[in-house]
Amino acid sequence: MTTAHTTFADRHIGPSPDDHARMLERIGYSDIDALVADAVPAAIRTGRPLALPAALDESAALARLREIASRNTVLTSMIGLGYHGTITPGVILRNVLENPGWYTAYTPYQPEISQGRLEALLNFQTVVADLTGLPVANASMLDEGTAAAEAMALAHRVSKAKEPGAFLIDADVLPQTIEVVRTRAAALGIAVEVADLSEGLPERDGCFGVLLQYPGAGGAVRDLAPVIAQAKERGAQVVVAADLLALTLLRPPGELGADIAVGSSQRFGVPYGFGGPHAGYMAVREGIQRQLPGRLVGVSVDADGRQAYRLALQTREQHIRREKATSNICTAQVLLAVMAGMYAVYHGPEGLRAIAERVHGHARTLAEGLRSGGVQIVHDVFFDTVLARVPGRAAEVVGAALERGINLRPVDADHVGIACDETTTAEHVTRVLEAFGIEGPGGPAPAGDLLEGLRRDSVYLTHPVFHAHRSETAMLRYLRRLQDKDLALDRTMIPLGSCTMKLNATTEMEPITWPEFANIHPFAPIDQARGYLELIGELEGWLAEITGYAKVSVQPNAGSQGELAGLLAIRGYHASRGEEHRNVCLIPSSAHGTNAASAAMAGMRVVVVKCDSGGNIDLDDLHAKIAQHGANLAAIMVTYPSTHGVFEETIVEVCKAVHDAGGQVYVDGANLNALVGLARLGEIGSDVSHLNLHKTFCIPHGGGGPGVGPVGVAEHLVPFLPSHPLRPEAGPADTGVGPISAAPWGSAGILPISWAYIAMMGPDGLREATEGAILAANYVARRLAPHYPILYTGRNGLVAHECIADLRKITKETGITAEDVAKRLIDYGFHAPTLSFPVAGTLMIEPTESEDLAELDRFCDAMIQIRREIARVADGTYDRADNPLKNAPHTAEHLAADSWKHPYGREEAAYPLPSLREAKYWPPVRRIDQAYGDRNLVCACPPPEAFED
Amino acid sequence: MTTAHTTFADRHIGPSPDDHARMLERIGYSDIDALVADAVPAAIRTGRPLALPAALDESAALARLREIASRNTVLTSMIGLGYHGTITPGVILRNVLENPGWYTAYTPYQPEISQGRLEALLNFQTVVADLTGLPVANASMLDEGTAAAEAMALAHRVSKAKEPGAFLIDADVLPQTIEVVRTRAAALGIAVEVADLSEGLPERDGCFGVLLQYPGAGGAVRDLAPVIAQAKERGAQVVVAADLLALTLLRPPGELGADIAVGSSQRFGVPYGFGGPHAGYMAVREGIQRQLPGRLVGVSVDADGRQAYRLALQTREQHIRREKATSNICTAQVLLAVMAGMYAVYHGPEGLRAIAERVHGHARTLAEGLRSGGVQIVHDVFFDTVLARVPGRAAEVVGAALERGINLRPVDADHVGIACDETTTAEHVTRVLEAFGIEGPGGPAPAGDLLEGLRRDSVYLTHPVFHAHRSETAMLRYLRRLQDKDLALDRTMIPLGSCTMKLNATTEMEPITWPEFANIHPFAPIDQARGYLELIGELEGWLAEITGYAKVSVQPNAGSQGELAGLLAIRGYHASRGEEHRNVCLIPSSAHGTNAASAAMAGMRVVVVKCDSGGNIDLDDLHAKIAQHGANLAAIMVTYPSTHGVFEETIVEVCKAVHDAGGQVYVDGANLNALVGLARLGEIGSDVSHLNLHKTFCIPHGGGGPGVGPVGVAEHLVPFLPSHPLRPEAGPADTGVGPISAAPWGSAGILPISWAYIAMMGPDGLREATEGAILAANYVARRLAPHYPILYTGRNGLVAHECIADLRKITKETGITAEDVAKRLIDYGFHAPTLSFPVAGTLMIEPTESEDLAELDRFCDAMIQIRREIARVADGTYDRADNPLKNAPHTAEHLAADSWKHPYGREEAAYPLPSLREAKYWPPVRRIDQAYGDRNLVCACPPPEAFED
Repeated sequence: MTTAHTTFADRHIGPSPDDHARMLERIGYSDIDALVADAVPAAIRTGRPLALPAALDESAALARLREIASRNTVLTSMIGLGYHGTITPGVILRNVLENPGWYTAYTPYQPEISQGRLEALLNFQTVVADLTGLPVANASMLDEGTAAAEAMALAHRVSKAKEPGAFLIDADVLPQTIEVVRTRAAALGIAVEVADLSEGLPERDGCFGVLLQYPGAGGAVRDLAPVIAQAKERGAQVVVAADLLALTLLRPPGELGADIAVGSSQRFGVPYGFGGPHAGYMAVREGIQRQLPGRLVGVSVDADGRQAYRLALQTREQHIRREKATSNICTAQVLLAVMAGMYAVYHGPEGLRAIAERVHGHARTLAEGLRSGGVQIVHDVFFDTVLARVPGRAAEVVGAALERGINLRPVDADHVGIACDETTTAEHVTRVLEAFGIEGPGGPAPAGDLLEGLRRDSVYLTHPVFHAHRSETAMLRYLRRLQDKDLALDRTMIPLGSCTMKLNATTEMEPITWPEFANIHPFAPIDQARGYLELIGELEGWLAEITGYAKVSVQPNAGSQGELAGLLAIRGYHASRGEEHRNVCLIPSSAHGTNAASAAMAGMRVVVVKCDSGGNIDLDDLHAKIAQHGANLAAIMVTYPSTHGVFEETIVEVCKAVHDAGGQVYVDGANLNALVGLARLGEIGSDVSHLNLHKTFCIPHGGGGPGVGPVGVAEHLVPFLPSHPLRPEAGPADTGVGPISAAPWGSAGILPISWAYIAMMGPDGLREATEGAILAANYVARRLAPHYPILYTGRNGLVAHECIADLRKITKETGITAEDVAKRLIDYGFHAPTLSFPVAGTLMIEPTESEDLAELDRFCDAMIQIRREIARVADGTYDRADNPLKNAPHTAEHLAADSWKHPYGREEAAYPLPSLREAKYWPPVRRIDQAYGDRNLVCACPPPEAFED
Repeated sequence: MTTAHTTFADRHIGPSPDDHARMLERIGYSDIDALVADAVPAAIRTGRPLALPAALDESAALARLREIASRNTVLTSMIGLGYHGTITPGVILRNVLENPGWYTAYTPYQPEISQGRLEALLNFQTVVADLTGLPVANASMLDEGTAAAEAMALAHRVSKAKEPGAFLIDADVLPQTIEVVRTRAAALGIAVEVADLSEGLPERDGCFGVLLQYPGAGGAVRDLAPVIAQAKERGAQVVVAADLLALTLLRPPGELGADIAVGSSQRFGVPYGFGGPHAGYMAVREGIQRQLPGRLVGVSVDADGRQAYRLALQTREQHIRREKATSNICTAQVLLAVMAGMYAVYHGPEGLRAIAERVHGHARTLAEGLRSGGVQIVHDVFFDTVLARVPGRAAEVVGAALERGINLRPVDADHVGIACDETTTAEHVTRVLEAFGIEGPGGPAPAGDLLEGLRRDSVYLTHPVFHAHRSETAMLRYLRRLQDKDLALDRTMIPLGSCTMKLNATTEMEPITWPEFANIHPFAPIDQARGYLELIGELEGWLAEITGYAKVSVQPNAGSQGELAGLLAIRGYHASRGEEHRNVCLIPSSAHGTNAASAAMAGMRVVVVKCDSGGNIDLDDLHAKIAQHGANLAAIMVTYPSTHGVFEETIVEVCKAVHDAGGQVYVDGANLNALVGLARLGEIGSDVSHLNLHKTFCIPHGGGGPGVGPVGVAEHLVPFLPSHPLRPEAGPADTGVGPISAAPWGSAGILPISWAYIAMMGPDGLREATEGAILAANYVARRLAPHYPILYTGRNGLVAHECIADLRKITKETGITAEDVAKRLIDYGFHAPTLSFPVAGTLMIEPTESEDLAELDRFCDAMIQIRREIARVADGTYDRADNPLKNAPHTAEHLAADSWKHPYGREEAAYPLPSLREAKYWPPVRRIDQAYGDRNLVCACPPPEAFED
């Protein structure tokens, strides 16, 4: 009989102590300490255990989180600035955001087991494309600010001009967007100018791009067509940051002539969350769609010619196009994009329009009430936001509204902004009027159409999906149907190397939908967010203790953003010492493509350092490169343990060599799950790292986002952490590098997840998790080694927390590729490991500590059985082209067809192991033709006829 | 383009207004008013619209519920009395209680699509059987009190004695249990005696049964073996009401010689909910298992001989054994039993034991602390509950504890009870000691084993299922795997006649897991439950307004209990007028079997009134029966609309005739979904009804419970509503009939669901829902009529809210039975309609208002296609024995087998309609052999070997 599971760590770590003993025995160790001593170089081991609070049990953690949450104050925010009150339909809240079938899914790289979320993303893309009036939209961006920055970069890339000039930003663009763009532009050496463009472009030459806000941050709705035309005449790309809800009424950017539209889909049913996560968006005109950053879902066909979805142009993924990297924004906000898309599905075009008209009506009533009370309204034409002029009285009005439970926006001493939204009621309008000293309810909105001449006449969301799921029952079933198509962590291990797909515990997830965390506007008065500040402060402190850094900032809302923030800190540091010329970034050839991309985005020059055949940094080449670039050396970026899953012995030496040459050391924290509690990056000699809270610290992958990528730095880099223009509390206000994300603390709304994980694991639990991850990887490696060569083991033949199965020789001999194995694993009910990264023709397997022994064995059994199938190809039992591997995955429809023409049997295809008869996942499509879809790029919902046989 | 969905009613009612128009057109009506005027007799139509508050939108309803919830005060309750603090594991909370895949499921009458919850219930039965040490446990009872009452009835049934004597209850049984038993016994004419049995049975003869509590209500743990032996010697059946957690340490009732064990599984992870719902349990010794009331899950085999689960002894279901009914307790608490079973799966035997030891340890520490502080402890041996003697100081101590946030039990002026539970911490113990005026933390529990000689040495929960799912990841996947086996409302219409499987909206469900509703002990000081009282008061008032009664009581926690309460009210009324002799209850032959069962339980004599060929009450026979029994006539029980789904024209006349003879009219509210807003039972002439909140008012079926069955009565019956010994507020304290359920307000914890439904629908929405239900039923009837005869239409050829498709002629001609159609519907992805009730050989279809037109059509298309398949049997195209209907349902495994020996094709079996290729449900087993399982009764988890091929 096993021992009682009494701590959270017991539940988080999959194998029981007895199972751990069995696993250790299998790899020849008597205890975990001995294994860890052999696997992890002594040189990097920390001498100091984690100084973190003792583990809380789940109830205590929830009680503490409720206490923290109660320190936030939920008022009605009518602040606007890109964040609006919205009603998340209950059916979407419960069945997407609170459902592990959706939130534990991985990025849809294996499209055959991702058809559900791919369809949901295609809905999102269709919403964005239809509403913006531009033909191609991507599957989401991190937020509106970074979307605008990426749009600037895109405009810069497509600019033909030799001297492209500046990027021109209208003064009425959201202030945080302006600053995010500035941060990015500064790194890239792009000039930015901010000017009032309401009367047209300034009299000057040379701007490669123009950014406009629609409606403006102050609320004004203008006909942008003239200024867009003017900009186009000058050869500039025009970017319009547009509000999706407003676009249900207003002529869309595409029809106004814009090249690119960006924005946020937050107000489509995604709670504030104190700033995020929300799905940003980008859509582009015909002609530049292949330049579009981010992930793009497209339509293709499967082996039966059946319509199927998959990521289009996937060869652009950063891990593949390492050398040509210009942007690492492939990170997306899938879960939130799914929610926003479903919000549109549930409301349909007429529902969205009704919401928009209601919001607009409230704004008009409010404006009319203010005017009749003698208050001047700055803009005559507006959608949802009214800008009131109250000379010298702004603070007083804002205070009076606060007393009535409403947050307004104090624009300056004389102006107050009031944004209406889906949650606004007549009562709110009345209270706002009272705050201005105007009694009595606002009358009805005046007759006449304020938006006359600006209204769109084009239709949108005509696809049947936006008309078929209007009852809650129908919506519930649609969500369930899509969810069932996908394999997520709630059904199977997802052994993705470098992605650390571990448990996302319910107790960690629960708090994020509590109103006290969900309903705080990022720019609400700071004393309404005391709970958040406490939680963030503790979390940043704990992460600093875990990593050995002086300070951590949680602002970066994806790993990619964390990398950029880290490199900008290094840049800032060199600059502060008068060493702006240091711009060379050394990157080992084994590095993840994002590293190079981030370096490029930080304005650095990438120099590759060779690796030896073991995947380790070639020290001779390193010293040579340092010698060559010494004076200009800015940094080295390494991953530790390496992307090959190995603890390189030389890491300390590498750090020293770079430091000696005046460079800084950046260690990518992607593989931190192999280090927590055993080693600290800061102690090894690293100056800066980003972490991935969605890997090591249990934020669920959400099908490809949200992620959180905090950056941690040593003391000398602290002044160069991200800051925020609207929140001095969010970073070093005077010396910081500016905002990396639109919101002051990035995706604050999901930070309770990582807080809860650390609080419940405690210092011992965290270390045990790391040890468990190392043990699991070595166990899998040991079981698979007789069947597949395991690449890159470290000393003692051990790996770190992941292992690479090498298929290349097998492929050469049999024609069976790593991809065939990945697809055949679907027939066995598994999500494939990482395919062909970091080495083409291999599978990288990271089991994590959360998988129990039964699941590890189920996976190994499947891999071993697949190896036997490969052997049958080798010995001629199976046809080389028509065999269960090449035809994988097999659908039920294929197997239940009257005719079966394969030389192997149906049962051999469906049930290669007897256990599959007990529980079987059926993929909805057969293998998908990637190339077909890229040749025939379709990235919006296909017409229903397309699905006909 | 359809109109915007802006109200909750728009989301609850499936078809859009346009679709409603299309449906009306199909049945030949231009508007809904005309249809309703033709379908519903004018004589019963109300002249007064519902006087209910205007509809709240979903956000407003949630806001109001949060306000109400905030009026409840959540303190730490150490009251005991059968309700204990417990920790619901997050993974179970989120993935069972908050997951529509579990909570929207129907009772598992169709076992092929219910294997998941049947397995979960088998786990529950195994937990109960193992822990009680008795071989057969049922799939749950409504609560501990009713379980004890049923045990008494069972003991009475098996008693061989001519004069069985009394039912003897130990004074240390829970007070509410004693009173529930008394209420039931009084109705049945059984004598009950309560006596202190701690020193053995009293010196007297003649008791057919004995009820003991283990541990006692006051906390004492005694060796019950001697008193049990004594009772057995006298020929009595011994019932032990036992605490499952205590049984992890103590010798179980079965080993002590008990015949029957009953109790509650609440403390296995199910929140208080102010008294419910929780799963009660019952287990019995060998020899009386076929007498066991309630549902029983058993093991059988499918057509392939594969192990499969189903309800055993299903012929005992009340709707079938109408004439022999002795109890209508087939209602169960499936959802809560699933939770309790999963709690045991997650903790395993060693985990449960560890929790029990911890709880026991706290109780010992507390007792020791009290003793050292000079407080006398009444019982030396206890498990979790300490009874302290503080002469004259009980109120003071309880008050002091309250100040420290803890509720204790004031037993009387001199005694205080303190119950420790899973949530108890050392800090709680310290605070309790302080309340007694004892400072400083309690020391460690003294050495030595308090329970020596009482401990069990038998093992329990040895089945692998209680050892395999210990990590949260493993548990999550187990729950998902089971859920995926079942068809619930989240995947398909469940067109069950008389069961009203409508939407259970997320917004209705959300509040029930808020701590302010979930964590209130039913006997906490009443001012801590102000929110509950407000909500219950409003709900009872609204239900009274809807039904036209003077008052409603929500205490009955199932429809069966509501019926009993209603009949007891009638009994009480007659008795109050000196007419105790009135004991004849007229029941039409078309009635649901529960009616007769309830009448029997209320001590009435059932006299059947004939029905005509149209299913209507035969008025001549009614008058004859009234004439015959006039002076003894107590009541008539009718269902309206009738169980045949028809609005009987004569209902008003029936009521009058019965009233004229001095009888009372009981209208079963099962079909209230056809009346709300159109007619009021009270206005028609009915004196009393029970409602089913789990039908008309959106409480989900939970796979077979929880239900809520409020009783509504006319003014003259108000004094005879249920009351409660511990809560004078819960009913007419002086005149009431006593408690019907163990908790004062029954399953109070789920009442927010019905409150929210009524609040969000408002008066118009409720009426529109009724109209929509009538329209949907008539639409389906009209579409199916050309293919299947529709039985029992009323005037104008219309049905009420359900319709009966008659298969009898078809069966005669082709051998294809209604059951074959039901099973074939699974292949089409549907849950079958009600099979062979009220008429054998038919299918009763109730679509409800929540199904949209697409789903109604999908169902009709399936039924019509099945009719075509039947035609192929008739014309010889299909073999009469080996065809897709007889072999239905088809599993994927069967269809993907290498060999296929049926004369029809695989695709014909799997994809009879093309739409099934888009979305297909695969049943986990083929058709189950019911008889095999009843012959070979196995009602606990089978050993894993049983699953081997």
